[in-house]
Amino acid sequence: MSTNGSTMPSPQVLYNLENPVFCCYLFWATVLVVKMLLMSLLTALQRFRYKLLGLVPLGLRRKIFPNEEDLFFKNTEVQFNDPHVERVRRAHRNDMENILPYFIMSLIYISTNPDATVACNLFRVASLARIAHTLVYAVYPVPQPSRIIAFGSMLLITFYMAAVVALRTLSFI
Amino acid sequence: MSTNGSTMPSPQVLYNLENPVFCCYLFWATVLVVKMLLMSLLTALQRFRYKLLGLVPLGLRRKIFPNEEDLFFKNTEVQFNDPHVERVRRAHRNDMENILPYFIMSLIYISTNPDATVACNLFRVASLARIAHTLVYAVYPVPQPSRIIAFGSMLLITFYMAAVVALRTLSFI
Amino acid sequence: MSTNGSTMPSPQVLYNLENPVFCCYLFWATVLVVKMLLMSLLTALQRFRYKLLGLVPLGLRRKIFPNEEDLFFKNTEVQFNDPHVERVRRAHRNDMENILPYFIMSLIYISTNPDATVACNLFRVASLARIAHTLVYAVYPVPQPSRIIAFGSMLLITFYMAAVVALRTLSFI
Repeated sequence: MSTNGSTMPSPQVLYNLENPVFCCYLFWATVLVVKMLLMSLLTALQRFRYKLLGLVPLGLRRKIFPNEEDLFFKNTEVQFNDPHVERVRRAHRNDMENILPYFIMSLIYISTNPDATVACNLFRVASLARIAHTLVYAVYPVPQPSRIIAFGSMLLITFYMAAVVALRTLSFI
Repeated sequence: MSTNGSTMPSPQVLYNLENPVFCCYLFWATVLVVKMLLMSLLTALQRFRYKLLGLVPLGLRRKIFPNEEDLFFKNTEVQFNDPHVERVRRAHRNDMENILPYFIMSLIYISTNPDATVACNLFRVASLARIAHTLVYAVYPVPQPSRIIAFGSMLLITFYMAAVVALRTLSFI
Repeated sequence: MSTNGSTMPSPQVLYNLENPVFCCYLFWATVLVVKMLLMSLLTALQRFRYKLLGLVPLGLRRKIFPNEEDLFFKNTEVQFNDPHVERVRRAHRNDMENILPYFIMSLIYISTNPDATVACNLFRVASLARIAHTLVYAVYPVPQPSRIIAFGSMLLITFYMAAVVALRTLSFI
């Protein structure tokens, strides 16, 4: 595993900024991390019910919090079942179920030294599909099959990467 | 950190396909990623209630969806409390709670250059234990302590890796 | 990408134990992995309701389990709504929403070869903030804004790392 430097060739290092595939991964993984973290803020927004598309009059605003210490205002109660809040939370959970395994899968996929054009476009399509997923699920609900298409795009890309990696490392089972 | 190449030895690169421990990690992490993503499809299956072990007659099938736009059929309602769907979702959540931290822990454990036999067998046992966990939790419920044993196996392996890494890097606290 | 060894300089390898920033990441990521896994055990503790701060008399202990096969004792029922259990579960979910993306973000942030003092202190503050978050949320509830400050610390650090990485790799969009 360790090399002597002078006579042996240097080991191939794929996880640094000289590898354009890794750089492309860095950019789009960062976009998805930011998107995921914004879901927390979107949930908080929904808890205060400032609607994203048109402000609601002050009297109709509702504050829905799951913990007693979160009740900033006197006229509120602990509540769990607001449909707008729960929708954002389901979208957030779906992100965790899909994007977090994708982060690991695409990171280790880079170690197989894939073709740069293929790999970069997979990263781009998967990331844009998940942004679309959030828009049609949590921001502005749109009839199916828009969400299933967005969901399936990243799923299929992750399965493709899994197939590539598993076939390459099958002898280490 | 950076080396001059001609006189200095090449840096040790553990995260590439020449390292059998990393290859073994790649294979089993891929297996677990695929297993986790299949949980989404298992939930969808349960929502349509095609039982995995024996098809239910058409008239008894139930369709349980959390969003209004998911109601493909007229005779269905938005519903949240189906016990079969919720069981799969709890198993999926348990996967996220345990497998996702394991992915990071075992990935960084490789950087300590562990003994190949030990590390590979830890990856194998942890992955097979979680597959067993899914089978006894979500596919075909089995009395305890089968699930606790499957759950505890990966947990203890992750704690072991954590102890190895923490002791090695304690001076960087 | 691949180098010839004798004439070319060795590639810079940031993901090994010779890089103090990576070592610091290893230590604090391990701490957070262990903290997250302990949440499962804290939930189990709450299910058996041995209070952390003072044992409850035997007769008042409650056992709240979500699965029928988990009912070890005759006098218990399947139950989902215990406020103490749900509080720990919300804290655990919040961990997943924030710490897991942070693991990926801080790991890839290392590839930009940041200043060691800055990077190490970011890792330390983010990790200690999340430990504080768990204490004030799940172990001993404390009035706001303690939890928001703890939550916001890691969030802002993750956003900062995201900005550094995105600006560095913007040409690979």
